[in-house]
Amino acid sequence: MTSDRTWTAALVVIGDEILSGRTQDKNVAQVALWLNEQGIRLAEVRVVPDELERIVSAVNELRPMHDYLFTTGGIGPTHDDITVDAMAAAFGVGVVVHPTARRILEDYYRDRPGGLTEARLRMARVPDGAELLLNPTSGAPGVKMDNVYILAGVPHIAASMLEGLTGKLEGGRPMVSITVGARAAESDVADLLRETEAANPGVAIGSYPFFREGKYGANFVIRSEDGDLARRTGDQLTSLLREAGYDPVEGGI
Amino acid sequence: MTSDRTWTAALVVIGDEILSGRTQDKNVAQVALWLNEQGIRLAEVRVVPDELERIVSAVNELRPMHDYLFTTGGIGPTHDDITVDAMAAAFGVGVVVHPTARRILEDYYRDRPGGLTEARLRMARVPDGAELLLNPTSGAPGVKMDNVYILAGVPHIAASMLEGLTGKLEGGRPMVSITVGARAAESDVADLLRETEAANPGVAIGSYPFFREGKYGANFVIRSEDGDLARRTGDQLTSLLREAGYDPVEGGI
Repeated sequence: MTSDRTWTAALVVIGDEILSGRTQDKNVAQVALWLNEQGIRLAEVRVVPDELERIVSAVNELRPMHDYLFTTGGIGPTHDDITVDAMAAAFGVGVVVHPTARRILEDYYRDRPGGLTEARLRMARVPDGAELLLNPTSGAPGVKMDNVYILAGVPHIAASMLEGLTGKLEGGRPMVSITVGARAAESDVADLLRETEAANPGVAIGSYPFFREGKYGANFVIRSEDGDLARRTGDQLTSLLREAGYDPVEGGI
Repeated sequence: MTSDRTWTAALVVIGDEILSGRTQDKNVAQVALWLNEQGIRLAEVRVVPDELERIVSAVNELRPMHDYLFTTGGIGPTHDDITVDAMAAAFGVGVVVHPTARRILEDYYRDRPGGLTEARLRMARVPDGAELLLNPTSGAPGVKMDNVYILAGVPHIAASMLEGLTGKLEGGRPMVSITVGARAAESDVADLLRETEAANPGVAIGSYPFFREGKYGANFVIRSEDGDLARRTGDQLTSLLREAGYDPVEGGI
């Protein structure tokens, strides 16, 4: 299931807790890395508050622009979990209780105190016409509606939903990244980097400076969908850095 | 410099390294917390790649929608640092070398090997008409253009630029957050939470579940611009949780 074109996805992170700074997001990096393994490029992320209209407009703007749209957050049992309602509004459909999701929750809560309460049953609600994304971790499933994949906000539950999707989405070639590090101020090697990128069409070179233990340094990340090209460019950059008197470290510092 | 209306900001994070999953973003939380202290609400975040058109369209979509727009990333000395060019394009102006920025960099690099090279001078480029955001940490200043604040991507340099802006932006009242934690499955207290929120117009209650040391729990975060109302609601929720047989922890778990 690969092809030569570039497949892209967007991610909408739904959560007042991210926008308030209370919670450090971990889903962007997690979804990005997973998507790359599927041969899909994360092209844009939006973080929006727990407000229906804001979710609807982000979803409807992004879903026609990309092959896939992922969302994280807002699918739990409490009143602030409104992602399913927002998605139904975005697609102009109603909300229904999915019979399989209901059965999963019935099984999951059978031996737990309280059983399947009305609040817990909220987690079986889906936009009319949606499919489930099964989730071995917490019982409550994610939801797939057209090209939109609705994941939990809790990172390890989102990870479990992604695991269930591994290998199932159509994609292209994964982006290959080669990192070369050097104890160089990036401004000293700026020309060398620009020329190396220009000499190798099809690669992008990013420069990520750091200051550690009192020393400047930078990691240079060469990215390409052509793995051989990325590796050749990495070798070339390593040689040029060495010739310029640095002691480049393949794999990065 | 406060008023009763809600002041909002958006943040555009510019960086292939975030979208590839290579780097864990830390600027969203940092900017969010700082903005809240200034009485400004972070209302939306977008993460976009190092591509001029993508930066331009995010900037031009967001800057009229909010009181302030912040960006992080892409203002260093290398070829992949294109934020200033993108901002100039967004505003339809040219790029100039800012004389003060040039002087700052001349001073900063005077005693450093290589001096003020052409690559380093890139960091003095600004959109025509922009002001500088001084930065005691690394020399290279941030840039202010109309209501847009252009910060570095390296978190401690961005922090230094924010520090220089502290207390200088017009804002309203900071959002007050009160956290109450309980060893409860959030689905068991969903009704109680919804009713508490409904009984206290002007507060939003978020529920953030966790699973630690083999036990379920959740933190409930009460947010309001009215600090007294937030505290009263926190006390009320604490009492209700205690009556329901939980052992609530003020401040969260």
